[in-house]
Amino acid sequence: MSDDTRARQARDDDRLLARTLAAITPPPHDPVGAQDHIDRLTKPPGSLGALEELALHLSTMYGDPPGPFDDVVVYVLAGDHGVAKRGVSAYPPEVTAQMCANFSTGGAAINVLSRAAGARVVVADLGVDADLSGLPNVLDRKVRRGTDDLAAGPAMRREEAVRGLAAGIDLVAGAEHAPDLVAIGEMGIGNTTAASAVTACLAKTEVSRAELVDRVIGPGTGIDAERLSRKRELVRAAVHRVQADDPVGVLAEVGGFEIAGMAGVALGAAAAGRAVLIDGFISTAAALVAASISPQARGYFIASHRSPEPGHTVALDTLGLEPLLDMRLRLGEGSGAALAIPLVRAAARIMREMATFESAGISGPDEAP
Amino acid sequence: MSDDTRARQARDDDRLLARTLAAITPPPHDPVGAQDHIDRLTKPPGSLGALEELALHLSTMYGDPPGPFDDVVVYVLAGDHGVAKRGVSAYPPEVTAQMCANFSTGGAAINVLSRAAGARVVVADLGVDADLSGLPNVLDRKVRRGTDDLAAGPAMRREEAVRGLAAGIDLVAGAEHAPDLVAIGEMGIGNTTAASAVTACLAKTEVSRAELVDRVIGPGTGIDAERLSRKRELVRAAVHRVQADDPVGVLAEVGGFEIAGMAGVALGAAAAGRAVLIDGFISTAAALVAASISPQARGYFIASHRSPEPGHTVALDTLGLEPLLDMRLRLGEGSGAALAIPLVRAAARIMREMATFESAGISGPDEAP
Repeated sequence: MSDDTRARQARDDDRLLARTLAAITPPPHDPVGAQDHIDRLTKPPGSLGALEELALHLSTMYGDPPGPFDDVVVYVLAGDHGVAKRGVSAYPPEVTAQMCANFSTGGAAINVLSRAAGARVVVADLGVDADLSGLPNVLDRKVRRGTDDLAAGPAMRREEAVRGLAAGIDLVAGAEHAPDLVAIGEMGIGNTTAASAVTACLAKTEVSRAELVDRVIGPGTGIDAERLSRKRELVRAAVHRVQADDPVGVLAEVGGFEIAGMAGVALGAAAAGRAVLIDGFISTAAALVAASISPQARGYFIASHRSPEPGHTVALDTLGLEPLLDMRLRLGEGSGAALAIPLVRAAARIMREMATFESAGISGPDEAP
Repeated sequence: MSDDTRARQARDDDRLLARTLAAITPPPHDPVGAQDHIDRLTKPPGSLGALEELALHLSTMYGDPPGPFDDVVVYVLAGDHGVAKRGVSAYPPEVTAQMCANFSTGGAAINVLSRAAGARVVVADLGVDADLSGLPNVLDRKVRRGTDDLAAGPAMRREEAVRGLAAGIDLVAGAEHAPDLVAIGEMGIGNTTAASAVTACLAKTEVSRAELVDRVIGPGTGIDAERLSRKRELVRAAVHRVQADDPVGVLAEVGGFEIAGMAGVALGAAAAGRAVLIDGFISTAAALVAASISPQARGYFIASHRSPEPGHTVALDTLGLEPLLDMRLRLGEGSGAALAIPLVRAAARIMREMATFESAGISGPDEAP
């Protein structure tokens, strides 16, 4: 790519990002009417718990009634990480590309769970360190073949971070119709290391970034004590190095291309007024990047599940999100988000189809005798 | 009904119950092969958490692969409670019949959530204190119009308890084909009072029945402190009165017709080798009755969710069940079970459709470097 082309690309990306951010507003619909509707449904007040809170939340984004959410897309973004060569994962780096082939033929968990949920999977290569051009069903949005080692220096240049964000935005905004509901997931050996560093830099807590590192580091896909300790040291070094306070700067320093892409998808979805179902730790770190860039985007986020990875809870707490599921999922790919899709449809359906006390002629709570 | 007819009915019910209990075996399929299959799927070991445990459990009942669970039935059983006249619920007793009318026309939460889950609803009147014969889509299995006040004496006669069990068994066993998957739910104003008494009598804990009462009593659909205190006193009196140690005796003393019916559905499903998705506190109390009658039936039970009602956790702990969902649901009707149906289908689908490391040509965990 010539310098000219690169400069033009960077300008276009900056413009797309700026245009997207300008389009994001808080969820536009007043919750009062929807809450009143919920309170008139034939059930004791509040008895559907988190499901009716979700119904209310959806109503603020889509109006009342929301749904039915026929067109749901799970965006699975893949990228490699320079730091993976240091042995921070239980799996070798080539598994990222191998799993993309598995996505391509429909055999991975996310393919299966999305079929079960009646959702489409859109896989995009944001930065896999392999040539995937021959793989059907995998979109080429490669920023570069793998990030640099975030423990040694910046993972990527700032323009590359914006490139990843813009590519993610374009996945949603470039479609003829934005999907009714958007879910995000990922694949990238080593990416809990990047997500840990991103979370330690962007989480809002009372403790220092250095202390936060200890709170966010976990076993990822399952590593032994030696690798865990190495991972902690590498993240500590990376976080210590990062001066940036701005989220795009943090993303460039310690993020990943798939994390940038997911943050872009989340921003693009929020700009289109669509709910974003977040999956596990890595996609929540991406949502944290997105919400740090645009606090108003947060109003469109739904946390699908809580993973055992400790950093996930730190990121969820910063976002102020309470997950729907707690099933000890730690696979990623969007698997937890896919499992939560039926809950979103069910919440919408409650608003669309349930009778009210008045319409069904049912007595309300009686007076104390 | 003449004494002769009644005696014949009681004999038939005893026989159906005995035949059903004789047919219940532990889940017949060895878990070793299924666990080996799960471990070869393209994901880190254990990373699908509770979903893969569910997949393994289903495989012990149905073989590997289980599913696809096309025909799922939610049995919603209704009954009234004499004790409801004492004001232990936020709602007047006539709401039981009114809600049956709501089920009949498809406007209740369980209708909506079952449609969302692609499941059929079968509503049966086990003991509603009203003539429901004109309601379409409500099966007449009435034992009697409402139980007697369990705080003053036995809620029903022993033959009536067996009648309820037999009616429940027949709902499953009398169908041309037993459904692939069975869920149980209920409607009955006052039935958390009965479920509390049943749980206090049948729960296996180190504390006395009297102490257990304090642990199982909760606000149900939402009552004030005065009613809560009344409910506690009534349950305490009932539990104090009960001498029975056998589960059918406990069911007769402090249970309800819909609780008997749900226990029967659970036994009938177990006898047919079908999984039983349990809903909230009242259906779990019914499952506790069923498992107390036939400990082997427990192997077919799946806990769909954990409700905030304290007795629910006591009953779940006695059954040794860990729920799939924790969404603060306290509606009953089978609503939590309906929400868990997609999780059961997803777990089965994992076993049916996911690629293995070998078939996908993916590297496993690498050696420590």
